[in-house]
This record gives sequence, structure tokens and C-alpha cells, in this order.
Amino acid sequence: MPRQITAFSNPLVKRIRGLRDKRHRREEGLFLAEGLRILTEAREAGILPQFVFYAADSAQHPLVVALVEATEAHGGEAIETDADILSKLSGKDNPGSVVGVYAEFLTPLDSLDRTRADLWLVAERLRDPGNLGTILRTADAVGAGGLILIEECVDPFSVEAVRASMGALFTVPIARAAWGEFLPWLRSGPGQLVALSLDTEVDYQAARYAAPTFLLTGNEAQGLPAAYAAECDLRVKMPMLGKADSLNAAVATAVMAYEVLNQRR
Amino acid sequence: MPRQITAFSNPLVKRIRGLRDKRHRREEGLFLAEGLRILTEAREAGILPQFVFYAADSAQHPLVVALVEATEAHGGEAIETDADILSKLSGKDNPGSVVGVYAEFLTPLDSLDRTRADLWLVAERLRDPGNLGTILRTADAVGAGGLILIEECVDPFSVEAVRASMGALFTVPIARAAWGEFLPWLRSGPGQLVALSLDTEVDYQAARYAAPTFLLTGNEAQGLPAAYAAECDLRVKMPMLGKADSLNAAVATAVMAYEVLNQRR
Repeated sequence: MPRQITAFSNPLVKRIRGLRDKRHRREEGLFLAEGLRILTEAREAGILPQFVFYAADSAQHPLVVALVEATEAHGGEAIETDADILSKLSGKDNPGSVVGVYAEFLTPLDSLDRTRADLWLVAERLRDPGNLGTILRTADAVGAGGLILIEECVDPFSVEAVRASMGALFTVPIARAAWGEFLPWLRSGPGQLVALSLDTEVDYQAARYAAPTFLLTGNEAQGLPAAYAAECDLRVKMPMLGKADSLNAAVATAVMAYEVLNQRR
Repeated sequence: MPRQITAFSNPLVKRIRGLRDKRHRREEGLFLAEGLRILTEAREAGILPQFVFYAADSAQHPLVVALVEATEAHGGEAIETDADILSKLSGKDNPGSVVGVYAEFLTPLDSLDRTRADLWLVAERLRDPGNLGTILRTADAVGAGGLILIEECVDPFSVEAVRASMGALFTVPIARAAWGEFLPWLRSGPGQLVALSLDTEVDYQAARYAAPTFLLTGNEAQGLPAAYAAECDLRVKMPMLGKADSLNAAVATAVMAYEVLNQRR
């Protein structure tokens, strides 16, 4: 029988609410996800929360019932609460009917099986959590094997990144590596490293991509360091007809990823 | 000689800071933009602020000098201030060296010249300011004629949308219209209306796009109403290999826009 919590001062509510802060996430090894669609996607991927908070008036919803049952069967705890507490936990005025608390999980670089997919996404010093979540969502859509985060990137377990990923955080493997670890790993097996660049004459549609392709996107403001771009097997550019000569990092990644996908179907 | 403001309590500071709130923007008809790159892009597009605040320690920067001179020559006011005030105005810890206050400007639908470009972007009930700004940035990159906002969309003059647009707000014409105004206007001249849809078998790369193409993107959560999709000349789908069957709205718009562009070059 799920316990009920309706007091803001409840210690568990305070603790969970603290997970919106990166330092607390690191200490606890836990993160927050919200919304029935995303938590259901996680459940279907076999990932269950340590805690699931649900609104009492949603307790009969078949997907909430399935989530609560699976969470309890998996050793987690289901907690019946109300919209105010859910709002406090998620930081949103309109929190949806469920908030889940999950153990953080990264995939060690050495555990990635590059033969599992023909396309992999790599992001270097990505700073915006919305961009990171959006790139995860794109990775899911194009069937990428995973996302590799290079150097100091924004936390993929931040509330904003999880939200923007729309559940892809649970289905797309994420690894973290310094450039000095990533490059030797990449060169230890097959893999074409491709950078989007402004300093090249190679059009992204004229290039031919070899599987597995590793698409490398640089920092939003500064792009990729020249030394990293020089290590790539291919540098390509996209046509830019406007005044700004720039695209959002998640957009550029997606346009490139669809080009690679399109060449193969 | 620019006046100097360093007091938080200054009435102009309070008034300008209020522009982060939509209601105040509507009352004043003004909005905020920040950062030397974006304000310079606006200046180069011939758009100058009513007020420009700049950090005293950036006063000698050639682009700041050019901005201050152009603003004053255009009847606006330049105000020397410090990082704390700039931070207070922009709401950012790291505000950059300039904040500008501009008059809002929308282009009436009837003033859009559809012969000016082969591609136009149309967004319906877009809710996320980051998506709106990102779509503006993409519109600039693909040389779109403008962005038409259908029904109730997020405010393009919000601080977040302006920031995400990276200056494209100043270079891409924006019109607003109800669907019931847009459709008769579209049908009064040449124009192929194309919707991205999940309910079609037409692949977005197999379709052929006729100029001018109007690419229609629906609401982030609900997509396009079926009745609107039915009015389109073409409904196309993109391959989705993942578990979620969805892409971020700004990403989907960009992948589509680059396909239209690629077919023409």
C-alpha cells in the first residue's frame, strides 16, 4: 500500500526537491524525471524509479497503475501525493501526474559496442541543457548508437535536459570522456570521425559517410577547437544563406544526422 | 555625452527591467536584446535601439563605439553603466557588455512579398521561446522569406526567444495571423503548403517541393490539428527509427527546411 505525503515539510519531499541542484544529484546519484509519457517510456525500456510520486486523482489511470506496480515489484517506493507537492518537486506550475526519481546511469566508453549502430553522436563542451536533451531525442529518432559527451558538458541529468530529451535519456546510451580518452578509443576500431566546420569547402551532401560514423558537434559559442577538428577524418559544411552563418548546435547535429541516415536508406 | 547610471533604484533601470515581463512589453511596445554580437547584427540590418546600456569598461570597444554613435545619431539614448546593472537588466549572471531596448516590430501578413523567397516557415501554436528563437535562426540560415506565427504562439520578443534567435529576430520578418486569415492569404497567390505529419506515407525526400514552399510546423505537444493538415497541399513524414516517434519542433523544421533547400541547389 503506497504511503501518502501531502506536507511540504516532509523530509523526503525536501530531499527529492534538492535533486534539481547538481551538487545534490552528484551526492545522491539520483535525478528527477516527470510526466507519465516519459516515465512510461522508461518503464518500457526496463528502467524503473527508486521513488515515484503520483497525484491521488490519477491513481486509477492504467499507466499510473502499471508504473506503481512495476516500481514496487522492482523494490522502489510509490508515494501518493497531490498537485502542489508534484509542482514543488518538479519546479513546474503544471507538473503532470507523476514525478520519478531514478539512479543516474552512464555507460563507460569501453562498454559501447560500436558495431551495434552505424551512427553515433559526439558533443564537445555542450553547455545548454535544452540542446543536450534535444540531441538525445534526435539520437533516438535517427537510431544512433549513443551520445558521447566530450570534456566538460552540461549535466545530462539536469531537469531541463531530461525534459528536453522527452524520454530519450532512458533509451540512448550516454558516455562521458575526455578528448584524450575518446580519440584513442575511437582509433582502436572502425569509425569515421566527422566534424561540422566553417573552415572547409566540402559540402555535407557531397561527402560520403562510412559506417560507423561518429558525428562531432562543438561548443555552442566557440565551436570545435581547431586541434580537434584537425584530428577528424572529414570536415564538412552546410549551406548557410543568411546573415549569421550559424545554426543552433542541436539543429546542426540533426540536419547532419539525417543526411547520414538518408545516404543509407 | 552619454549619461551614466549605476543605481539599481534608477527609474529607467526599473522600467527596462520590467520588459522581461510580457505585460510590460505589450504596454511599452519595447523589448530587450543583449550581447554585442546580436546588437551589432541588428545595427548592420539598420535596426537601432531606443536605449543602449553598455559597461563602462567596454566603452572603447570599436563595436560598442559604433553602436553608441549609431544609436545617438538615430535619436536613441546611450547609457554608460556597470556589470551589475547589465546583469539586473538582462537577468543573466554573465550579461555581456551591452543591452539594447528596441521597439517591437511585426510585419503585417499582407505586407509579406512571397515572391521575395522560395521558402517560408510557418509555426502553429508554438509554445517554447527557445524553439521560436531557434526556428528564426534556422530561417536566417536557409534564406527563408520570413516566419508566420499562427494562432496563439509564444512571444517572439521574450528574452529567451530573442536570445535563442542569436540576432535572427532582427533579420527575419515575422508576421502573426489566425489560421482563418492565413489560409485565404496563402490561397490568394502561388504557394505550396507542406505539413510534417505522422499520418502519411509520403517520405519527405520523395516529395517534390514547389516554390514558394510554406513549411508548416504544429504545436510541440499536440502537433498540427487534423483540420489544418487536411488543408495542406502536401503532408510528408520523416523517418523515425527510435522508440519515441518524435523530434523537437525546431529540429524537425530545420531538417525539412534543409531538404527543400537541398532539392533546389
